[in-house]
Amino acid sequence: MSFSLQEKEDTIVALATPQGVGAIAVIRLSGKDAVRITKKVFKGKDLEEQPSHTIHFGTIRDGDRIIDEVLVSLFIAPRSFTKENVVEISTHGSSYIVSQVIKLLIRQGARPAKPGEFTQRAFLNGQFDLAQAEAVADLIHSDSEASHQAALSQMRGGFSDEIKSLREQLIHFASMIELELDFTEEDVEFASRNDLKVLVEKLLRVVEQLIGSFDLGNVIKNGVPTVIAGKPNAGKSTLLNALLNEEKAIVSDIAGTTRDFIEDEINIGGVIFRFIDTAGLRETTDTIEAIGVSRTQEKMKTASLILYLFDLSDTDMVEINRDVNKLENLGVPFVKVANKTDKSNKLFISELNNKHPDTIFISAGLKENLDALRNKILELVNLDKFRTGNTIVTNIRHYDSLVKTRESLLDVLQGLDDQVTNDFLAMDIRRSLHYLGEITGEITTDDLLANIFSKFCIGK
Amino acid sequence: MSFSLQEKEDTIVALATPQGVGAIAVIRLSGKDAVRITKKVFKGKDLEEQPSHTIHFGTIRDGDRIIDEVLVSLFIAPRSFTKENVVEISTHGSSYIVSQVIKLLIRQGARPAKPGEFTQRAFLNGQFDLAQAEAVADLIHSDSEASHQAALSQMRGGFSDEIKSLREQLIHFASMIELELDFTEEDVEFASRNDLKVLVEKLLRVVEQLIGSFDLGNVIKNGVPTVIAGKPNAGKSTLLNALLNEEKAIVSDIAGTTRDFIEDEINIGGVIFRFIDTAGLRETTDTIEAIGVSRTQEKMKTASLILYLFDLSDTDMVEINRDVNKLENLGVPFVKVANKTDKSNKLFISELNNKHPDTIFISAGLKENLDALRNKILELVNLDKFRTGNTIVTNIRHYDSLVKTRESLLDVLQGLDDQVTNDFLAMDIRRSLHYLGEITGEITTDDLLANIFSKFCIGK
Repeated sequence: MSFSLQEKEDTIVALATPQGVGAIAVIRLSGKDAVRITKKVFKGKDLEEQPSHTIHFGTIRDGDRIIDEVLVSLFIAPRSFTKENVVEISTHGSSYIVSQVIKLLIRQGARPAKPGEFTQRAFLNGQFDLAQAEAVADLIHSDSEASHQAALSQMRGGFSDEIKSLREQLIHFASMIELELDFTEEDVEFASRNDLKVLVEKLLRVVEQLIGSFDLGNVIKNGVPTVIAGKPNAGKSTLLNALLNEEKAIVSDIAGTTRDFIEDEINIGGVIFRFIDTAGLRETTDTIEAIGVSRTQEKMKTASLILYLFDLSDTDMVEINRDVNKLENLGVPFVKVANKTDKSNKLFISELNNKHPDTIFISAGLKENLDALRNKILELVNLDKFRTGNTIVTNIRHYDSLVKTRESLLDVLQGLDDQVTNDFLAMDIRRSLHYLGEITGEITTDDLLANIFSKFCIGK
Repeated sequence: MSFSLQEKEDTIVALATPQGVGAIAVIRLSGKDAVRITKKVFKGKDLEEQPSHTIHFGTIRDGDRIIDEVLVSLFIAPRSFTKENVVEISTHGSSYIVSQVIKLLIRQGARPAKPGEFTQRAFLNGQFDLAQAEAVADLIHSDSEASHQAALSQMRGGFSDEIKSLREQLIHFASMIELELDFTEEDVEFASRNDLKVLVEKLLRVVEQLIGSFDLGNVIKNGVPTVIAGKPNAGKSTLLNALLNEEKAIVSDIAGTTRDFIEDEINIGGVIFRFIDTAGLRETTDTIEAIGVSRTQEKMKTASLILYLFDLSDTDMVEINRDVNKLENLGVPFVKVANKTDKSNKLFISELNNKHPDTIFISAGLKENLDALRNKILELVNLDKFRTGNTIVTNIRHYDSLVKTRESLLDVLQGLDDQVTNDFLAMDIRRSLHYLGEITGEITTDDLLANIFSKFCIGK
């Protein structure tokens, strides 16, 4: 999906709101003829005479036939999302009306927008860089506080600013070194090799830090992979349901904003925990006893968190010690969760409290002490970082570019140590600049753009 | 759901666009504090200083935390849908963001809107009458040209104007007759009994006509009930799929506007045909042979249209004559559809053409001549009326009120013939006025309103 010049000149149209029945639907046009095309089918004020950021009531007509009473919002270039003329037509929320109005606008000269084409135009017209454009899609799909904050911060340019600042410092050195190449016979040194080494080392630390944030970013975007490990009757399924139902109860208190719940994804304190099905999470397989089995062990190792769940009335200290020992060897953070407090004897609870003071005692069936469990979980995954405004990489494309940047920066360092010639040094620096530039879209190819924007929904 | 005065004073908030992921979502507030409440969470221009019908870019914030970058549209009372202050907040289309923004607005003093509460306020504040308010819901749910035109015409007041004009003429007579009651001892006659009779007869004709339009209105709103009758191998299912797939192909030519197709509902020339499952339309039961069976016969009688489908290669003239005879006795309009033209011999086709010249010859499998079938179907249901701008009753509540109006008008006529006393006559006229007033909402009860608006979606 690369765009010809002609295509970029077209006025595009698409439904901007979700499909389905609602009170209103919004149809969006962008392009130099957006207002002129709308005017042809709109009966009301002369839209071409109206100022930007104003709203006008009228009817959309196909000849004499009225299609709907609408509100038309005008955004005159460059004061719009795409920096082009943009018109938003707010119709009654019927898919029949929407399709009629869009067809009519197409007959008058608009073209159906491709996926992400509005955002792509915003990028091409300099409204924001590529990382910010990608964040728009992430923002739309964010379903937790953590993923939302990461996407919003990226959209507002936090991440881009960091990358651009790195890149500018490197560009300065690159140009100095290339200048030296021009004076190669005179043996001058405009760029201090020492200063360059200090800068590259500094850049490497930042890049390493960004690369390191991807694990967290991935977790924020896709959920913390979590396993509930326990014997068949430990209450795994009851616990999962209890957590899910409490979340549903909290979320659905506002009518009309309930969302689709994904089985086995639970929002705890603004973070999504994705429960992995190890040998059937909802089955009655004994995953703990199966830890020795390599397949199960591999699966549990991919988790970022394990809830070790045991039935107080059906587990002895020997068993618990043995399981805890196994889990410690796995190396994945885990919480000891003692279930069915209502069915246990106090002596055992007190003994357990002595031996394993970090145990959380709950009753999944009675929904008791689940808050303590939630707090413990949040403590373990330690997601404070995302709240402090630190830049977090959530996008695998950015991660790949950062890894390549690191490689080329390491090559620069190596070159400095080996005292390679300026042209080799300049080449490695250019490579670093290239990969950094890919992130923000200063370096792009049509394929790259097509790949990114085709994943957007139509209308965005 | 009756509303206290306090509730009518509240500022209400709801999502106005469909739920789901989209480029944008629109949250709507209405009430005297709509702008003030939005201002508390909006960082940008001072919203209370801005004129109506203007749009403002800014951020929605919960304290220091940014929730989204948004566009805020202002509609200052009475220049809005509800005639109250209305604010529309256009956010990125994420359900997480929508629920966060709505929660925040609720914390600042807004209240979640009940279903249809925006439209109810528009009605209570005199934006339109009850029949028009009901048409808003019909318009949103319209899925064909016919239902859309009927709803739009009703929303724009065509139907209401007709009812109001009837009612005004009757009110004039009622007041004359009640005046006579005040002078009852003087035996004066302000209202000519003859003129009254002429008027009532004229009103009755209009009411009858409106009542008569309900069959058509019902068909427009809910689809023409249609049966495909034929032997197991006649190709019923193939025909249905061919019609449905051609419709899908036409509708889905605009990406992003495809709609949900209802199995067995097909749009032909702007009219929905609802195919009824008689003894399993998609099964291989022989409905024709079963016409004698009373249950099947009853079902076929409820249809407004029957497609009599037979396989040219597997049906002889005796059989066709017998079936046609049975169908004629049923009294439901039907089309003779000869299928599998590709597998038949020409002699039989020519013979059939002689005996039954109104036969439509198709090949459902090859999708041949389906246009001729569609034209014949449209010709038979004769829906021209809905295109001529005649007022059509589509709402069962209106139909009921019109039937009651007719009864009371007939009572008035009877009273005139029987020369009943003025107070009886006045009572019957008042009853007519009452039922007519129910339609447009001049006469309402809390229960009636609650019943009507609770069927709306939230946000409308």
